[in-house]
Amino acid sequence: MTKNRLEAFSDGVFAIVITLLVIELRPPELDDGESLAHALWQLWPNYLAYLISFAIIGVMWLNHHRMFEQVRIVDGGLLVLNLNLLLWMALIPFPTAVVADFIRDGGASASTAVAFYSGVVLLAAISFSALYAWILHDDRIMGVRLPPEAVRAARRRFSIGVVFYVVALGLSFVAPWVALGLHAAMAGYYLFDQASVPSAEPA
Amino acid sequence: MTKNRLEAFSDGVFAIVITLLVIELRPPELDDGESLAHALWQLWPNYLAYLISFAIIGVMWLNHHRMFEQVRIVDGGLLVLNLNLLLWMALIPFPTAVVADFIRDGGASASTAVAFYSGVVLLAAISFSALYAWILHDDRIMGVRLPPEAVRAARRRFSIGVVFYVVALGLSFVAPWVALGLHAAMAGYYLFDQASVPSAEPA
Amino acid sequence: MTKNRLEAFSDGVFAIVITLLVIELRPPELDDGESLAHALWQLWPNYLAYLISFAIIGVMWLNHHRMFEQVRIVDGGLLVLNLNLLLWMALIPFPTAVVADFIRDGGASASTAVAFYSGVVLLAAISFSALYAWILHDDRIMGVRLPPEAVRAARRRFSIGVVFYVVALGLSFVAPWVALGLHAAMAGYYLFDQASVPSAEPA
Amino acid sequence: MTKNRLEAFSDGVFAIVITLLVIELRPPELDDGESLAHALWQLWPNYLAYLISFAIIGVMWLNHHRMFEQVRIVDGGLLVLNLNLLLWMALIPFPTAVVADFIRDGGASASTAVAFYSGVVLLAAISFSALYAWILHDDRIMGVRLPPEAVRAARRRFSIGVVFYVVALGLSFVAPWVALGLHAAMAGYYLFDQASVPSAEPA
Repeated sequence: MTKNRLEAFSDGVFAIVITLLVIELRPPELDDGESLAHALWQLWPNYLAYLISFAIIGVMWLNHHRMFEQVRIVDGGLLVLNLNLLLWMALIPFPTAVVADFIRDGGASASTAVAFYSGVVLLAAISFSALYAWILHDDRIMGVRLPPEAVRAARRRFSIGVVFYVVALGLSFVAPWVALGLHAAMAGYYLFDQASVPSAEPA
Repeated sequence: MTKNRLEAFSDGVFAIVITLLVIELRPPELDDGESLAHALWQLWPNYLAYLISFAIIGVMWLNHHRMFEQVRIVDGGLLVLNLNLLLWMALIPFPTAVVADFIRDGGASASTAVAFYSGVVLLAAISFSALYAWILHDDRIMGVRLPPEAVRAARRRFSIGVVFYVVALGLSFVAPWVALGLHAAMAGYYLFDQASVPSAEPA
Repeated sequence: MTKNRLEAFSDGVFAIVITLLVIELRPPELDDGESLAHALWQLWPNYLAYLISFAIIGVMWLNHHRMFEQVRIVDGGLLVLNLNLLLWMALIPFPTAVVADFIRDGGASASTAVAFYSGVVLLAAISFSALYAWILHDDRIMGVRLPPEAVRAARRRFSIGVVFYVVALGLSFVAPWVALGLHAAMAGYYLFDQASVPSAEPA
Repeated sequence: MTKNRLEAFSDGVFAIVITLLVIELRPPELDDGESLAHALWQLWPNYLAYLISFAIIGVMWLNHHRMFEQVRIVDGGLLVLNLNLLLWMALIPFPTAVVADFIRDGGASASTAVAFYSGVVLLAAISFSALYAWILHDDRIMGVRLPPEAVRAARRRFSIGVVFYVVALGLSFVAPWVALGLHAAMAGYYLFDQASVPSAEPA
């Protein structure tokens, strides 16, 4: 019961955040003699930012989903660490809008925007790792004792994510477009990785 | 369990997107001597766009609902293709606002606005077809082997939708109002079609 | 199953609409020498509109809730008539904002704003009656045959609501404040009426 | 059944309100020669307000969750008092935005902003106490008769919350930053308090 309500609340937040991204997409105001087609085309940084953030939040939801499939008992620490994850995840539309507004300015603005974006995503990834560490630290939460190699594999997978986001953060200052591409590549990789998960039998 | 959470998340996104449409409706600012009644009346393209998009998203939710009634097992491909559908569906408030802002300008702006709208709806329809093709391609997902004629009928129904949206996209450049009317007619047709579905016995 | 998803989707739309009302409340911009306290106080029409609309949507949710407690089978007509109700209910934040912006202007603007508000609420109430009529028209939907006097009582209750909203609509043109007061009084009456419903045993 | 839908609706409102907080965070407009990094840094009152309100709403959700774990029967009074709680809780993004906009102005504006914030949070806390008092006043709602000392402890815990918010309201006029710090401290205290709740066995 407790777990159902935690999942329902989290799903609600994920669903709202992923949908709020569209609010940043506003009809353009045309300059004199500008065609609507041109103005809509000029919004491509917004489309790109929408796409990457949608994929990142979608992947986070999929991971959250798989993580909680294993959870059987919810304690206070889990509730609070889950809130902490939602805090950072719910922020993502804000740096998404900053990237959309400043990525084309180039120079320090583009670097700052992508670094800001990378920082928020990194904090969300760290929050994910903390949540998973909490789930693993107490056998009662999962109800089963995982084989050590499974735990190590899961820890490694999360650590690699954090490392990549640190790299993206560093890259932002040198090559913001490459850093943004790294975010897109990672989200795409995780999506294809998830797509290959075999079907689960119904409970 | 997995299927329940997928439906809950999708329902959340559908509910939020259909409700965000109202955000585009803002109280008008009155020109000198203009009456509020006149200003509210002038917003009719917004009302029309609200109505058509509400109907389209409502129909998509009904179809999603019926499609997942048949699903018994959720695999990774289904999760990712469902996210892809939500990506395009969640975009709809943006082209809706573009149509509301530019349809009355006539000329190239009206054509571009309706073509943009038609394109996003078309991509959502194609995503729907891809999701359904995935559900059909593996007997384990539905848990039953559908009779071939039922599969053919379902495929035909989705293909007709895609064809009509392609026609609407093409029509946008020639007669944007007719293209918009085609969207309204299709949503209305699907709604009346759904309304005639007989009652299902409770599980 | 079908009924659960219909309720979940409807609850999502109700929850979002009732929460979106707060978006209309924006921090004021201070005039020269104006205190924040005065500027916040000047927003009282917004607070009033927030309060009345919150109560109206809350009452609609409570009624929706009670109505679907009786439903056992969902057919296509029910799905479409429910979507129609959500369409009008989801519009309410828009006339709410119009009332907040124009009620203090007095004259024709105040009348138009409250009439617009009354009209949308009236259409939502009519949609409610249509939904209930559909539920009653087919014994299979409720699974039980209601005693005729219960049906008559329910029909009367809904008709009275519609009649009062028609009166509010008419009053708007003569005395917009009185019409607004009628809305507040009705929402308050329904809330106190609901508050006296005895507790239901858990299923 | 009734209880499930009440929880689902409430969870929806909580999830939306906590997520709408991010809407107040908008990409900055740069002054001449200003760096984006500086402009983002200047938004720290917004980040602070986001953080505190996120924590407060998160704690409210956790409390709501624990309170309804004990509820077995839903009556009309519970529904209406729950709506009343949601009314005040859903308002929070508005005073949050007011604090973010005016806290740095100092003087009367800062005091008014924090007092307004404290007042809305206080009304939400009082609504919580009223809801809990209703749950306690009728043994049938919880299905068990709580030991008197447990009732006293719960009443004391809620009363302390109300008292602290009254203190924060008073402090706002003298030292708005201290009052804001008190809100942050209380939310932090409740979060750590919740984090120590032992795990519950699955139902």
